[in-house]
Amino acid sequence: MNLSRREFARLAGAAAVVPFAPSAAFAQGGAAKKIRYCVVGLGRISLQHFMPGTKMGSLGEITAIVSGHRDKALKVAAEYGVPESSIYSYEDYDKIRDNPNIDAVYIALPNSMHAEYSIRAANAGKHVLCEKPMANTVKESEDMIAACKVAGKKLMIAYRCQLVPTFLHARDLVQKGSLGTIQAVESANGFNIAKGEWRCNRKLAGGGPLMDVGIYSLNACRFFLGEEPVGINAYTSVIDHDGRFDEVEENVVWTMKFPSGVLASCSSTYGASMEGIIRVHGSKGTLTLTQFGYQGIHLQARINGVNRGDPPQMIDDLEEEKDPAQFARESDYFSKCILDGLPVGPSGEEGLKDMKAMMRIYESAAKNA
Amino acid sequence: MNLSRREFARLAGAAAVVPFAPSAAFAQGGAAKKIRYCVVGLGRISLQHFMPGTKMGSLGEITAIVSGHRDKALKVAAEYGVPESSIYSYEDYDKIRDNPNIDAVYIALPNSMHAEYSIRAANAGKHVLCEKPMANTVKESEDMIAACKVAGKKLMIAYRCQLVPTFLHARDLVQKGSLGTIQAVESANGFNIAKGEWRCNRKLAGGGPLMDVGIYSLNACRFFLGEEPVGINAYTSVIDHDGRFDEVEENVVWTMKFPSGVLASCSSTYGASMEGIIRVHGSKGTLTLTQFGYQGIHLQARINGVNRGDPPQMIDDLEEEKDPAQFARESDYFSKCILDGLPVGPSGEEGLKDMKAMMRIYESAAKNA
Repeated sequence: MNLSRREFARLAGAAAVVPFAPSAAFAQGGAAKKIRYCVVGLGRISLQHFMPGTKMGSLGEITAIVSGHRDKALKVAAEYGVPESSIYSYEDYDKIRDNPNIDAVYIALPNSMHAEYSIRAANAGKHVLCEKPMANTVKESEDMIAACKVAGKKLMIAYRCQLVPTFLHARDLVQKGSLGTIQAVESANGFNIAKGEWRCNRKLAGGGPLMDVGIYSLNACRFFLGEEPVGINAYTSVIDHDGRFDEVEENVVWTMKFPSGVLASCSSTYGASMEGIIRVHGSKGTLTLTQFGYQGIHLQARINGVNRGDPPQMIDDLEEEKDPAQFARESDYFSKCILDGLPVGPSGEEGLKDMKAMMRIYESAAKNA
Repeated sequence: MNLSRREFARLAGAAAVVPFAPSAAFAQGGAAKKIRYCVVGLGRISLQHFMPGTKMGSLGEITAIVSGHRDKALKVAAEYGVPESSIYSYEDYDKIRDNPNIDAVYIALPNSMHAEYSIRAANAGKHVLCEKPMANTVKESEDMIAACKVAGKKLMIAYRCQLVPTFLHARDLVQKGSLGTIQAVESANGFNIAKGEWRCNRKLAGGGPLMDVGIYSLNACRFFLGEEPVGINAYTSVIDHDGRFDEVEENVVWTMKFPSGVLASCSSTYGASMEGIIRVHGSKGTLTLTQFGYQGIHLQARINGVNRGDPPQMIDDLEEEKDPAQFARESDYFSKCILDGLPVGPSGEEGLKDMKAMMRIYESAAKNA
């Protein structure tokens, strides 16, 4: 996948305001410089999505691996042309400092390990791309931001949706007034989790569906509205006492009030199929986004005519992408931010805002229990 | 529209448990006896929906009219063959007591008048079919129930959706376990209100979109789940300071926790188009109902196979009804309850439960303001 300047300009829109600047990599002429990634954790998201995505993209390559399973690591390393000397265990992880063929790490570990391995990477002089949720606690998140700042390294949280053109189109409709005055947002996202997943272990996951998939709804509300909730109220519940939910919530619903007066209602679960959805309601129209999955996001919008009686403008914007295209975009986006010294849109500060909101959701649920 | 026995049995399912009994009206042989309705208030819902609906149905007829506009009343009376002697003003309303050609009243007045005109009807010995919301307050609602009880007259609140076969099909899917263990319900319903509507006058309407259209979401949650919320939390807001929302909320969101642990998140507005929707999420599948309008309700359900890998069962149940078919069903349903002495499904008690929940929503929103 090659990013055209136009497309990158669009992607860059995910950051606050990033004037497009030609990549230093391209400006040098000849073969473009690539960001060399060390993948930390060989779970599904690394093996099936991020690594093939980076290979599919044009600005990154996999040059190192961190894994607790040497055999698995050797196999994957061979596949990606990673030399055996660039395979690390969690114990000797800090040695990445001495590897000049690593520019950045991709952290795809259980949530409880995000902070530690991000901070150790920053201390080793590497940029950090970390999966969501950023960490288990606000304190850990702040420490990650501080460590990257001190090290002068970039920190990105892998909010893949914020880079998908359809998602950005939806945000444009909201923020440029196409839907009129926004009044309400609804969102839901969840799934029926299998037994034995680390995601149901509080120590590893920090929480339940909220932190894993509800975060998509929370982040979408904040991202589309461009403001932070002043009020948050929530309930959690456990219905299935089958061992899956001894430590984390099975269901969570929450409402948010934003400074503009916009109200949001959100829902997440680990106990039922709950297709991702966002509906934004404005005085002039409604947009619906479905699916937060890796295969594309579907936007439908119905915008009323300016004059009464005008037929509504219908927008049907289906981004059909073959996985791992979203990860190629994510990997290339972070690479480009590093190569061109651009600020990162889905930054550590962005991740921290979600962390703070999620902690408020859990506090409210505890109070309302 | 004629109700088959089978269809009526299905409708009767809306009530708790109503064994089907042949109508006394039919049992007598010859022309069926009809319930004679006095329509109280000649607004849009009477003129365009209930009156043509009753005409379309088979168990009711319009025999009297109450209106503050004599000219309008005369014109409508001529159209329905109502004698001039059966036209009443609000002042001489109590004289319906002396009219043997009135069995029941249909109350379609601003909410603030529901209680008074329902109670006066009961005192005059007439059955009462009253539009939703039942009243402006819990106290008024309790008084209505008491007055009808003392008079030995039936009281029905016009929850039209509870009689729509598609809606009942959806409830069956929920209550008979087709979706597995229910975890969460989402619902929304709203519209962009015009200036000058009585619905924005607190004294007349009792509240804003919650009481007018949000009530559909609230009632659907309660009706589908068959239980009452133990926890309620809400926010309201006003964004458009254009005179419409000086007295009532523009937006409202609320969450509910039910005794089973099911969580619900709901949203309503008078400031944006917000197509009615209900999504129910269970461990085995999800159903989506769209539209609470007069033209039919659309049900889509995706139910997973019992065994992993089984293809999902898709249900697509579109009730395409031409208005006023839903009102014909509503009118005939109440007529049949009266004729056959059957308990009413959407009873005063049912309306009172919504009133109590709505007052809790407003109390919570005030607390959270």
